[in-house]
Amino acid sequence: MAQKIINPQDLAFQLYELHEVEKTLAYDRYADHSRDTLQAALDLALKVAAEEFAPHARLVDEEEPRFENGRVTMRPEVGKALDVLKETGLMAASQDYERGGMQLPAAVAQMCVGLLKGANVGTQGYAGLTIAAANLIMVQGSEEQQKRYAEPMMAGRFFGTMCLTEPHSGSSLGDLRTRAEPQPDGSYRLFGNKIFISAGDHELSENIIHMVLARLPDAPPGVRGISLFLVPKKLVNEDGSLGERNDVALAGLIHKMGYRGTTSTMLNFGEKDGAVGYLVGEPNNGLAAMFHMMNEARIGVGLGSVMLGYTGYLHALEYARERRQGRPVGDKNPESPQVPLIQHADIRRMLLAQKVYVEGGLALCLEGSMLVDQKKHGPTDTDRELAAGLLDLLTPLIKSWPSRYCLEANSLAIQVHGGYGYTREYPVEQFYRDNRLNPIHEGTHGIQGMDLLGRKVAMAGGRFYLELMNRIETTIGEARHYERLVDSANRLQQTAKAMADATGAINRIKASGDVEKALANATLYLDAFGHVVVGWLWLRQAMKALDGLAGSGGQTAEFYEGKLRACEFFARYELPSVVTTADLLKSVDTTALDMADEQF
Amino acid sequence: MAQKIINPQDLAFQLYELHEVEKTLAYDRYADHSRDTLQAALDLALKVAAEEFAPHARLVDEEEPRFENGRVTMRPEVGKALDVLKETGLMAASQDYERGGMQLPAAVAQMCVGLLKGANVGTQGYAGLTIAAANLIMVQGSEEQQKRYAEPMMAGRFFGTMCLTEPHSGSSLGDLRTRAEPQPDGSYRLFGNKIFISAGDHELSENIIHMVLARLPDAPPGVRGISLFLVPKKLVNEDGSLGERNDVALAGLIHKMGYRGTTSTMLNFGEKDGAVGYLVGEPNNGLAAMFHMMNEARIGVGLGSVMLGYTGYLHALEYARERRQGRPVGDKNPESPQVPLIQHADIRRMLLAQKVYVEGGLALCLEGSMLVDQKKHGPTDTDRELAAGLLDLLTPLIKSWPSRYCLEANSLAIQVHGGYGYTREYPVEQFYRDNRLNPIHEGTHGIQGMDLLGRKVAMAGGRFYLELMNRIETTIGEARHYERLVDSANRLQQTAKAMADATGAINRIKASGDVEKALANATLYLDAFGHVVVGWLWLRQAMKALDGLAGSGGQTAEFYEGKLRACEFFARYELPSVVTTADLLKSVDTTALDMADEQF
Repeated sequence: MAQKIINPQDLAFQLYELHEVEKTLAYDRYADHSRDTLQAALDLALKVAAEEFAPHARLVDEEEPRFENGRVTMRPEVGKALDVLKETGLMAASQDYERGGMQLPAAVAQMCVGLLKGANVGTQGYAGLTIAAANLIMVQGSEEQQKRYAEPMMAGRFFGTMCLTEPHSGSSLGDLRTRAEPQPDGSYRLFGNKIFISAGDHELSENIIHMVLARLPDAPPGVRGISLFLVPKKLVNEDGSLGERNDVALAGLIHKMGYRGTTSTMLNFGEKDGAVGYLVGEPNNGLAAMFHMMNEARIGVGLGSVMLGYTGYLHALEYARERRQGRPVGDKNPESPQVPLIQHADIRRMLLAQKVYVEGGLALCLEGSMLVDQKKHGPTDTDRELAAGLLDLLTPLIKSWPSRYCLEANSLAIQVHGGYGYTREYPVEQFYRDNRLNPIHEGTHGIQGMDLLGRKVAMAGGRFYLELMNRIETTIGEARHYERLVDSANRLQQTAKAMADATGAINRIKASGDVEKALANATLYLDAFGHVVVGWLWLRQAMKALDGLAGSGGQTAEFYEGKLRACEFFARYELPSVVTTADLLKSVDTTALDMADEQF
Repeated sequence: MAQKIINPQDLAFQLYELHEVEKTLAYDRYADHSRDTLQAALDLALKVAAEEFAPHARLVDEEEPRFENGRVTMRPEVGKALDVLKETGLMAASQDYERGGMQLPAAVAQMCVGLLKGANVGTQGYAGLTIAAANLIMVQGSEEQQKRYAEPMMAGRFFGTMCLTEPHSGSSLGDLRTRAEPQPDGSYRLFGNKIFISAGDHELSENIIHMVLARLPDAPPGVRGISLFLVPKKLVNEDGSLGERNDVALAGLIHKMGYRGTTSTMLNFGEKDGAVGYLVGEPNNGLAAMFHMMNEARIGVGLGSVMLGYTGYLHALEYARERRQGRPVGDKNPESPQVPLIQHADIRRMLLAQKVYVEGGLALCLEGSMLVDQKKHGPTDTDRELAAGLLDLLTPLIKSWPSRYCLEANSLAIQVHGGYGYTREYPVEQFYRDNRLNPIHEGTHGIQGMDLLGRKVAMAGGRFYLELMNRIETTIGEARHYERLVDSANRLQQTAKAMADATGAINRIKASGDVEKALANATLYLDAFGHVVVGWLWLRQAMKALDGLAGSGGQTAEFYEGKLRACEFFARYELPSVVTTADLLKSVDTTALDMADEQF
């Protein structure tokens, strides 16, 4: 693990043994692929991550992009790394062959980006946003928009952004004010201010394509009156050549605690005559259009959290193995040699906690990626519908659980390093700062809780929630056939039962009409539900590990034993608190809701 | 609360109603004081904190001290603020009148420093370390050392440091190698390297007095062979005038994630002929001498964590009241005005969590401060002995509980601010970075757990542990007389009972000789025990609040009602997880202990 980005055995185990990504090769779309071609793409991404992205991760933190003389300047290493990435074709990893893509399964395509995130989340931001914006155009845009804008994006010639947030309306998108005025030629002129626009300006690409939410003049108020527009930094002529500069101005850069390599910008649209934009999809359907891609974007956030946690874990593990400090409990001889940190129980506990968070988080994200493919390419309508529903249900968890617990992993990685971990001479403090963004962007932790409990659990009459609970129950039943897993399976069952009871109690309050009360602790529900799902994935990992030990897998016996112990740790140290939270949720407590402003 | 450092009502409530600091005025030492003089000192500290310290807190983070041409340079505001502080006499707040001190009770003296920490922890560092080093000389040093070194420190002419850590031995002090060679004149020459020495060099004072742990030539190995030395940066002549530069060289500055205003240095002692040092106290008794002051230093760390959490909470509270965002659950009218953030249940939950952490943490630190005075000035030997034992027991909790939970409060303060909280345009991200040091320095979280469970709980045959548990039980009994507190009291009793059971089970394993197993989860024990003690302090606050509502107190009805709800929140949202952890501890689980290196 010289690169300290991922444990290659774990990646292979998760993709090929746990999630059986090779099964997706049965879909026509992936018929040309084999495990070798999938692995080749991952190896390539890991090589680029380790050789081109990781080496300047600290540099772009120390020397963040600057706004000087109307231009954004940044370290040259960023452009060089992105140029190498463009060359690999990985920016179109999931796209069609005919568009210059690789047609890789979602789990592999997302993992390729994930490896870049673990290596250097700042530089990766430019590529990640471009991939997301191109995907959006490919799903929502016209054939002509796809050719003129998305294809150069997939090739890395143009980069992209997502322009949602405005200064006066963060999470409350329905309140955005940017307006779009129709022009006789079918285009629009946009006027408004956007904030927190990542990668909003730079000189890393020939052009920047902004995907902008705005309102038409006759739009209804709120979220039903939002449309999606494509606004290029430089206009693009019919032949693909670049025309004049559009009326999009960089108003300033925002300086962040972490994630500093990716510029966060304030953009003014229409300071002069209005920024030329083109409607994408139907009028007043912009939020739905944007959210069509949101599941994948949110898996991306979750996976980014995981990978920051994962690299921190591997750094802490190496440090704990190499650094000698103290003696075993009971060794009173001050002249005996100091032992490696990893020999101390508390260090091992902190490493094991990191392991269950990051490997559990990775399993969760890849579960989502597998559903992305099943949703698109599953053999029957029912398969696809079921996958789509489960993906919708799991998305808030995939986005949120890692952004909380893999951030905690980053804190533990600092703690393992002691005083050194707090210094900027070691990388773990940067991972912690970088990862702190993830519970905020792409829908805050609180928003995800409302989404899960307020919408997803109940959608389709609770069908997908029940399906997930059934799958968990099935796994528990299977795990009980393995003697070693009976205790973990029982603990998971107790936890799932407690959450089901809590869900029932909350649903009864909701049905009674007191929605505010029902949703008052939605964030706690989100965290607890996430633990149940990750506990389920740990039990599945443990079963696969036992199968592997019995001869069916490709990893070492130590690796499999580590998975078993990690499952046991999660069941014993993490799951019991969920029962406690579930009891609180079941009581539909309103202590916080009832607290008045003036009582603080 | 324009200063956003502390809620003045809460400070008054905690000092005068909860902890009844006026009772210490019965001690001869404090006979000259009255509530007015105590409050005058606090008001002065708050004024200096708000006017001189807070305004440049961000500046010293952005422009941290630099090492240039052999000198440390830093922002001039630091020296200016410290000069004002010196003028106030607050650096000798707890010292004798005859030494130029104010003879303030410990709770008030420590609180004065705490206010500076909340305002600007970086600049405060120089003063805080000086006060600690001066205290150490006053307790351990000779009359002549007190006059020549400590008095100028208390006046602010000299500053001080604590030099413990060496590059190869962080937490493992017994392995330190710095050596002290006796000289014919009774002085010593020191040779060795120290790291992470806060305030180790600067030009803020006429001189710097280093308190250095080192070994005599004939010293036994390990912690029993450590002596304490006083090593001035510049030698001090008999008449108090400064002599030549000592052989102490700044080898470099360490760059930290936060707490940047306080330099962290590497110091080389004896690059040439050896650094001239003077033995403080008895030979080979240095660690005991240093630890004599450690209780107060550790209260200082805990209080620093609290105050960083507290200022973050007040910033988040103000933001939540002013920022309008979104609508109440159920309001489907997109044209209704947006409401202040504080009207959302999840925001209130995050504010309430911050409130219970920071106000609970403050109550805990002040409990320790009160014991400091009872230990020194209590009327009988028994009182003093009991106070000393309870203080020893509580110290690891006072140091650790705030450094974990008030850091969590800082994370919640960021979350309340949303994307803005992640930017360096708002102060909350700095509080979060600054506070992340506290679980590391002055004994890591893990070390504190070992101290609590391995030593403190069992000391004197468990006498002080049992005394604390009895006090908690007594409070529970008293609280049950208030109808409103019955539920909270019952929850605390259940929690305390679970911890008592866990303690018993662990003690049995320890008695059987398997100490490593008994201590394997000492950190979890620390966290859980801390919650029991803070739960006790919340119940005591709630009783005082009910008394206040009945007319005996000086605060507003809203304030008291807020305390009651906060107590309920702590009992309902925080205590139940302790029962879960206690169950795990009772099982004396060894999952992490048993994990082998190669299984990670």
